[in-house]
Amino acid sequence: MVKRYLELRALEESITLIKGMFPAPGLTEKVPVVKSVGRVVAVPVYAKYSVPEVNIAAMDGIAVRSRDTISASDRNPVTLVQFTRVNTGNIVPPEYDAVIMIEDVWEAGERFQIRKSAVPWQHVRPAGEDIKENKLILPRGHLIRPFDIGALVTYGITTIDVLSVNIGIIPTGSELVPLGVRPGPGQVVESNTVMAQVFLSEMGANCTRYSIVPDEPDEIRKTLMKAVEENDLVLISAGSSAGTRDFTESVIRSLGDLVFHGVAVKPGKPVMLGKIEGIPVLGLPGYPLAAQTVLREFAAPLLESWGFPAVPHYTVRVRLAHPLTSDLGFDEFVPIFVGRIGSTLFGTPHGKGAFAQMATVKANGYTHIPAPVEGYEAGTELDVVLTTDPGSIERTVILTGSLDPALEELASLAHDTGLFIHATNPGNLSGIRALCTNSCHAAPLVLPAQSFLPTYQPLMQCKDAEDLAFVHIASVEIGIASIDGLGLHDLLQARFINTRKETPSRTVLDAVFAAEGIDPALLNGYTQEVHGPPAVAAAIRNGFADAGICTSSIAKSNGLRFVPLAHEDYELAFRMKMINDSRIRTLISLIQSPQFSAILKKSGGHDTSITGSIRRLDSTRTLSPFSPGSIPVGYP
Amino acid sequence: MVKRYLELRALEESITLIKGMFPAPGLTEKVPVVKSVGRVVAVPVYAKYSVPEVNIAAMDGIAVRSRDTISASDRNPVTLVQFTRVNTGNIVPPEYDAVIMIEDVWEAGERFQIRKSAVPWQHVRPAGEDIKENKLILPRGHLIRPFDIGALVTYGITTIDVLSVNIGIIPTGSELVPLGVRPGPGQVVESNTVMAQVFLSEMGANCTRYSIVPDEPDEIRKTLMKAVEENDLVLISAGSSAGTRDFTESVIRSLGDLVFHGVAVKPGKPVMLGKIEGIPVLGLPGYPLAAQTVLREFAAPLLESWGFPAVPHYTVRVRLAHPLTSDLGFDEFVPIFVGRIGSTLFGTPHGKGAFAQMATVKANGYTHIPAPVEGYEAGTELDVVLTTDPGSIERTVILTGSLDPALEELASLAHDTGLFIHATNPGNLSGIRALCTNSCHAAPLVLPAQSFLPTYQPLMQCKDAEDLAFVHIASVEIGIASIDGLGLHDLLQARFINTRKETPSRTVLDAVFAAEGIDPALLNGYTQEVHGPPAVAAAIRNGFADAGICTSSIAKSNGLRFVPLAHEDYELAFRMKMINDSRIRTLISLIQSPQFSAILKKSGGHDTSITGSIRRLDSTRTLSPFSPGSIPVGYP
Repeated sequence: MVKRYLELRALEESITLIKGMFPAPGLTEKVPVVKSVGRVVAVPVYAKYSVPEVNIAAMDGIAVRSRDTISASDRNPVTLVQFTRVNTGNIVPPEYDAVIMIEDVWEAGERFQIRKSAVPWQHVRPAGEDIKENKLILPRGHLIRPFDIGALVTYGITTIDVLSVNIGIIPTGSELVPLGVRPGPGQVVESNTVMAQVFLSEMGANCTRYSIVPDEPDEIRKTLMKAVEENDLVLISAGSSAGTRDFTESVIRSLGDLVFHGVAVKPGKPVMLGKIEGIPVLGLPGYPLAAQTVLREFAAPLLESWGFPAVPHYTVRVRLAHPLTSDLGFDEFVPIFVGRIGSTLFGTPHGKGAFAQMATVKANGYTHIPAPVEGYEAGTELDVVLTTDPGSIERTVILTGSLDPALEELASLAHDTGLFIHATNPGNLSGIRALCTNSCHAAPLVLPAQSFLPTYQPLMQCKDAEDLAFVHIASVEIGIASIDGLGLHDLLQARFINTRKETPSRTVLDAVFAAEGIDPALLNGYTQEVHGPPAVAAAIRNGFADAGICTSSIAKSNGLRFVPLAHEDYELAFRMKMINDSRIRTLISLIQSPQFSAILKKSGGHDTSITGSIRRLDSTRTLSPFSPGSIPVGYP
Repeated sequence: MVKRYLELRALEESITLIKGMFPAPGLTEKVPVVKSVGRVVAVPVYAKYSVPEVNIAAMDGIAVRSRDTISASDRNPVTLVQFTRVNTGNIVPPEYDAVIMIEDVWEAGERFQIRKSAVPWQHVRPAGEDIKENKLILPRGHLIRPFDIGALVTYGITTIDVLSVNIGIIPTGSELVPLGVRPGPGQVVESNTVMAQVFLSEMGANCTRYSIVPDEPDEIRKTLMKAVEENDLVLISAGSSAGTRDFTESVIRSLGDLVFHGVAVKPGKPVMLGKIEGIPVLGLPGYPLAAQTVLREFAAPLLESWGFPAVPHYTVRVRLAHPLTSDLGFDEFVPIFVGRIGSTLFGTPHGKGAFAQMATVKANGYTHIPAPVEGYEAGTELDVVLTTDPGSIERTVILTGSLDPALEELASLAHDTGLFIHATNPGNLSGIRALCTNSCHAAPLVLPAQSFLPTYQPLMQCKDAEDLAFVHIASVEIGIASIDGLGLHDLLQARFINTRKETPSRTVLDAVFAAEGIDPALLNGYTQEVHGPPAVAAAIRNGFADAGICTSSIAKSNGLRFVPLAHEDYELAFRMKMINDSRIRTLISLIQSPQFSAILKKSGGHDTSITGSIRRLDSTRTLSPFSPGSIPVGYP
């Protein structure tokens, strides 16, 4: 029997509910001032003493009693009997209330003569000028910053009472192994509570992570009860979906009240809120991105309502590089990578679904799509909350197109120079589109040999196509993979497995068929498409098909035989105007470095004979060298 | 003999110099993954194993060998012999390469019949879908964020090599006492190196603070030599001005090279850079704000050039609330408080000079005035780098005008409700101006009794003056302070001390003189002006004058006698349209609370009989109750 969510509340309503139900626990702790950065002042901090504590001379001169100077004038110089020499910063003794600058004083033996009266406090930094004893330094609620420490120390503060809260975090799941243990088949490392601990500790919480509890209701109940007794807030990870082994809801019900289970938010829909002995119990979904949403959108606002510092929300306005769909009725949070091309910030949505955990790692922000919105067109302007320093955006180059292991090697070299590479793999056509619309810095493209032209068509149609240039990264052989070493004309007698339309290998295949006069309709399996060369090789290896089109290196690594048909050029396409961007220049010089060719040769599968040559599209739609001399261009 | 700065370099040039002279020390350290947030990856982090490590079912159904399904169709159902039942998330055993959804399967005894072939990898999450073994998780240079931890843990990472650097920090100065010791007269707590330690630790540095070194060249030399041996960067605090006891420059010269001393930056001009045995030695000026500048603009960029994370620079565009002057030829950094009034962000510059340390504490950002700029007019738009979460701006109410202890009590109550009060004390006229130009939320004003009208004039001239409202905070008695209890007509025989024009007490005084027909020119000392009532009281106590105008509470606290002349109303003036702002509503309700009156009564010096009443300016330029009934308005 599949359980259903009891109710699906709106996100805003559920956050309001959680913030309204649980008053601040009001826990404080005393920390040394040097450990107080990032914490929130719980008890107002007052100066221990005045600074300066006594009057201080603000000029070099003599300290005097102002009343002794009243009658002094040019016509009536006064010779002072009582005075003392002071330099800037010296104490002005208590019997004096003014300082006369040394320039305004005439020596008269061991005494001084003045010709102008001194107003009380003239050139004196009075006691308490910086701060007076018992005056407020930091109010309750102030988030302590590094430069606040100077003032605190100066004014005599050694410890501070800061807000504190105890949070218990319980991982549940029989498939979990703890950090440091290598998971066996079907096991996963318990990571969500580690992430929760780190995230909440950064906000100033004391977190206790309990041991992993298997999917046993009694075990869960026992640990949850203990956690509720020991903490101000309890997070229980997973077991909150609607599966048969999800016991969190029933355990909460058995110990206290279930406030809600299920909120119209994605990811994070199975989020759960309970109340046990007055303590909030928040159920984290098991999917990492769902857990992140619940930490950020539920746990953090609750802590904020208790006075903890908000996770900083620095928002930038970006132009969406690709369309972004969203489920109507759900508040949705999508990882976004923000990059700058020229003066425009572009936002690239990052994978929902697969690669989810890496999506957050590769993104540097996220956007919130409100429930009534079904999605956005490419080009829409929207707000993105950054998760990195905006400065890192300027050090990142955005590559959109077809990824190849060669690009990973290049990225690795780039990272060593301090240049970040943000590469996405939507394929050749999307890469060309991004290049044409200036929403990437450069497009890594797999271009088939020049006699097979279709891939060049969209490039030629690109606005300002004459401005496009191509740095050769490597050459890749493409051909027929099979167990038996089948050739082109053997395919009519074999079970074939195809790749998707518009992939470079498919383009080559169709062009070869056309050139050779082979009707693809006659091929058994021509309409059966898998994702790309790795899936083709796997299908052949598994006996599902006899042959398919593949790269030489992938065929070989799968133990298949390989008959070459053509070669592909792996090129980094960019706009010539980008050559002024230091990031692009760095990238090109890295491609042209002997180090890069050496790495490619070592890893195998790539021909590097013209790596680094720069070419342009000519009127015959072929790549021609345009910067002869700089790189030997001995292309066959 | 006064030493001069050897040279005064431009800021940008000196930063370029420091970044260019010292290559990254390249120190790394291994930290547990849970302690790695905020650190920078020093060695690229690769997945320890693929996730999932084996193929996983993506649907409930049966795992099959795709090759067994090839011939299945509606007309030719196939009964499978080899298969296994799987639920979503289960392992797909290695002999199978596809999952058929349970909906597409017909039970046939203990076997299953299918009517459609299964493509390889259909409904299978292949091993390595999330990440493949040895694939990059985090590149070198990546700043680790809380949500990165989930991915790291999932992919088997337990420790990470992060960038590390050892920084030695030397405090010098015979006047210094360490944190925790109460300074005697003329001593100060050594705070700059504590601040430096906290600031640099936040960037990921290991800081060693050495014991305080007195102003003895040999002692300084010994400690500096030791620090240079033990660290990658040495900061030496103070002794860098041009005074007779500033030995830092000569000590650096004796041990190595002085690169520069003095940069055209304010604060921070005496900054010094040396190079001893290849190690950079940075001289921090003694003034706290100057030390902050050098930490932020010199030490941080050097660490950034070594790969450490930039101190985040979140910039907002603000409208300057007051004019801001700057010295031509100096890059200048000024603490700014940023507040929002309606949809406009206003920036209020915070004191250069006195109260300098508190200026940084009270500000939430700073602006950089380039060397060629002499200053900005009020209303100029400029960039401010925030030092707080932008969210805190929305929780802050900006008050500009005349401060009184009563307002501190009010602010303290407000802080308890989570509302921050940012109050500046430029005086009544500036408060009225800010109110009239909508550059504050409300103006605390000292309004003399109604028969003395001049102060009301600027209020009446305010645009939309009919929109102004006034909440009464407290009444304050004003009169003549003296040792002997002098009255108004005794002043002609006394030495008088005055307050500045346009202060409320001066306005009252002049109005009283006018009403009584007294010619102020006849007063001995009428032209001798001090800052305000506290200075008046001090001048009388010190025997500089016999009488002056003062509040009753200040006169009493100075042991002076007091003859009342009038009372002043301490009012919070605001625009009626602001009443919709929850911050203003909170503030008014706090003023009207019995708790606030009780606090004022307890602290003394204030009459609270009409505290909390709200009034408006009427056509006769007097305050009239406008919300009768809500507050008893029994004003005499």
